[in-house]
Amino acid sequence: MSLESYMNQIGQQARAASRQLAKASTEHKNNALLAMADALEQARPRLIEENAKDIQNGEKKGLDAALLDRLLLNDARIDGMIEGLKQVAALPDPVGEITDMLYRPSGIQLGKMRVPLGVIGIIYESRPNVTIDAASLCLKSGNATILRGGSEAFYSNQAIAEAVTAGLNAVGLPEHAVQVLNTTDRDAVGRLISMPEFVDVIVPRGGKGLIERISKDARVPVIKHLDGNCHVYIDDEADLEKAANIALNAKTRRYGVCNAMESLLVHKAVAAEVLPALASAFVSKGVELVGCDAARSIVMDMGVATEEDWFTEYLAAKLSIKVVADMAEAIEHINHYGSHHSDAIVSQNYTKTRAFMTEVDSASVMVNASTAFADGFEYGLGAEIGISTDKVHARGPVGLLGLTSQKYIVLGDGHTRDN
Amino acid sequence: MSLESYMNQIGQQARAASRQLAKASTEHKNNALLAMADALEQARPRLIEENAKDIQNGEKKGLDAALLDRLLLNDARIDGMIEGLKQVAALPDPVGEITDMLYRPSGIQLGKMRVPLGVIGIIYESRPNVTIDAASLCLKSGNATILRGGSEAFYSNQAIAEAVTAGLNAVGLPEHAVQVLNTTDRDAVGRLISMPEFVDVIVPRGGKGLIERISKDARVPVIKHLDGNCHVYIDDEADLEKAANIALNAKTRRYGVCNAMESLLVHKAVAAEVLPALASAFVSKGVELVGCDAARSIVMDMGVATEEDWFTEYLAAKLSIKVVADMAEAIEHINHYGSHHSDAIVSQNYTKTRAFMTEVDSASVMVNASTAFADGFEYGLGAEIGISTDKVHARGPVGLLGLTSQKYIVLGDGHTRDN
Repeated sequence: MSLESYMNQIGQQARAASRQLAKASTEHKNNALLAMADALEQARPRLIEENAKDIQNGEKKGLDAALLDRLLLNDARIDGMIEGLKQVAALPDPVGEITDMLYRPSGIQLGKMRVPLGVIGIIYESRPNVTIDAASLCLKSGNATILRGGSEAFYSNQAIAEAVTAGLNAVGLPEHAVQVLNTTDRDAVGRLISMPEFVDVIVPRGGKGLIERISKDARVPVIKHLDGNCHVYIDDEADLEKAANIALNAKTRRYGVCNAMESLLVHKAVAAEVLPALASAFVSKGVELVGCDAARSIVMDMGVATEEDWFTEYLAAKLSIKVVADMAEAIEHINHYGSHHSDAIVSQNYTKTRAFMTEVDSASVMVNASTAFADGFEYGLGAEIGISTDKVHARGPVGLLGLTSQKYIVLGDGHTRDN
Repeated sequence: MSLESYMNQIGQQARAASRQLAKASTEHKNNALLAMADALEQARPRLIEENAKDIQNGEKKGLDAALLDRLLLNDARIDGMIEGLKQVAALPDPVGEITDMLYRPSGIQLGKMRVPLGVIGIIYESRPNVTIDAASLCLKSGNATILRGGSEAFYSNQAIAEAVTAGLNAVGLPEHAVQVLNTTDRDAVGRLISMPEFVDVIVPRGGKGLIERISKDARVPVIKHLDGNCHVYIDDEADLEKAANIALNAKTRRYGVCNAMESLLVHKAVAAEVLPALASAFVSKGVELVGCDAARSIVMDMGVATEEDWFTEYLAAKLSIKVVADMAEAIEHINHYGSHHSDAIVSQNYTKTRAFMTEVDSASVMVNASTAFADGFEYGLGAEIGISTDKVHARGPVGLLGLTSQKYIVLGDGHTRDN
């Protein structure tokens, strides 16, 4: 079969399955998730065996240790997938919720009903557990899924797919509700992102390069998370102890996460007071510091921050520091250099915190709290399919709600429109 | 200046203006709208003079009477624009609304704040009053706008733009909050839809051809309204009097509107009872009927409906009629051939109406009510920028809310994240 025929078939099957899923009861979907958990449990030896092929191939191809680690499936990680399925089964079902129901002057009753998006295409890189994460969230929200994992995890993903299919079959939901592409042909991605007749939205998960490529070429809407260049701004009216705690937490809790602070902005009136001790604390944790001239005049042994630094998401033990004249400059800096992900102010001033909240154009704006809170679990979404840095549709951590939309429902009793 | 430099300048100016608009008070925005209304009033002679140039050019180019009519600005239409501005000024301001504020177990307070999308690009065809409609809704929702009207309305749009700018200047809002492109170069559209750094969303308004072209080439999200191939399904358990009224209203209230019924589906058990009188009523109103074999065996003098007919939005006094075996077939037909716009069931059966509402994948689903209600004013949105047939972001009639999104806000008091 040609790639095009194959992808069309996958698309048609997904569309058909999505109609069944959209009307599946909560109990039916939950039973499918639990049946998948059972199937994964039973497939443990096979999962580890198939994963070993991927690891071997990866070693042959010379993948680095970090990539090989992300690729690895062991008992603990299979436990994690099983636990994840149970957690998603326990989440409330957003589908079918009717809100805002009221009478209009014409006599009709108008409301909104929450419904699945339809078919979601997920494109991801090495971590095979994304197959389960993504499939379970899409299924719970009533969507059919087409998954395209990285070629380096091909055997692992196919083995996981078998367990998913077994779970669907066990409860009598359509087995095409979740389809994992069985080709490593790169053109399959190109086709997946350009068939709006079969796919309603694409969620890419992976590095910035992958996501930029997909966003550029997609012919269907993309829920994307490009990067997290997050800021903490310490105001001249900050409680400096809180400020130091928040800045340290935002940077050093974990370095490789998208909600980590990458640039620290400090009001010039408190820079000399706050920066020396804070810089020492960062350095003692192994964080490399670069800064503007004013910052470097206070903390001498700091590198020079270039224009490029202000735009950079280090995802590493490195931080850029800038002294600003006032909050307005901080906001302008954040809106210009930031990635509209998560940014925080530390200040005791009522008027300024209100203005910062309104004017910072980011998916999450924090007041006197660490950017580290920007996370689906911390926000109570239960799980997240990603963090959106887009403005339309979902913004910030995307959970089940972000995989649904609302349609209008109109109830009448023979109502017609006069004019 | 090259087109590229021009468009970059427009984009930068819009982005800068959007920052100011996002924090503008409701009163300030309303005053701007009222000042625009005053400026239009004062510009009346100039508007009619400039519009005459467009009309003259249109006549030279041989535009047909319908197009010339759409192009025309007269006193009544200027009244309409002025009235529209006042109505938008009177609408509630969605920006800044904070909802769902609650404490999380970590101690942070989490909520959502409604914010403008940023910069909205509007691409439209002949009707110059769209300039005011679109600009006023975007301004009220705190967004900067870049407008690109049809070349045939060039002089009219420029004259309207002058009045808009005068209104912005009069109240001290940035004059780049609304920019009307002053070029008819087609490449300007190509650039407008592919500069995500300056434009957050595109709203095309016009024929299907325009919208398909723009959706295909856009590099930013598009809120689009492709077509309205709407259905009414008459169930075997319908109140047949209500059914006939609804079907007649949905088709004949107006023919050229997107919420008009284009296909009538009738359950086979009631087809012989309902179709003869209903067909006569349609024919007496001048509606041309085409149908499936079963429909034609009941109403003899009906044309044959081809496969193409089921997909067609006639926007005219023409209707296709199909007899279906049951509701399941009706739903399948609607989801397959329809455009996911607005579709209705007429039935007294509780279980079936519930299922229809859930399973029909359309922006508006009506139960015992005419599809004609699918409209921003009928839904209480005050005004609409369009009707979205997309699923992500806004679905159905799009008012001020559809031009905003929600960001997360997090309030702490020195909160840091532990794990």
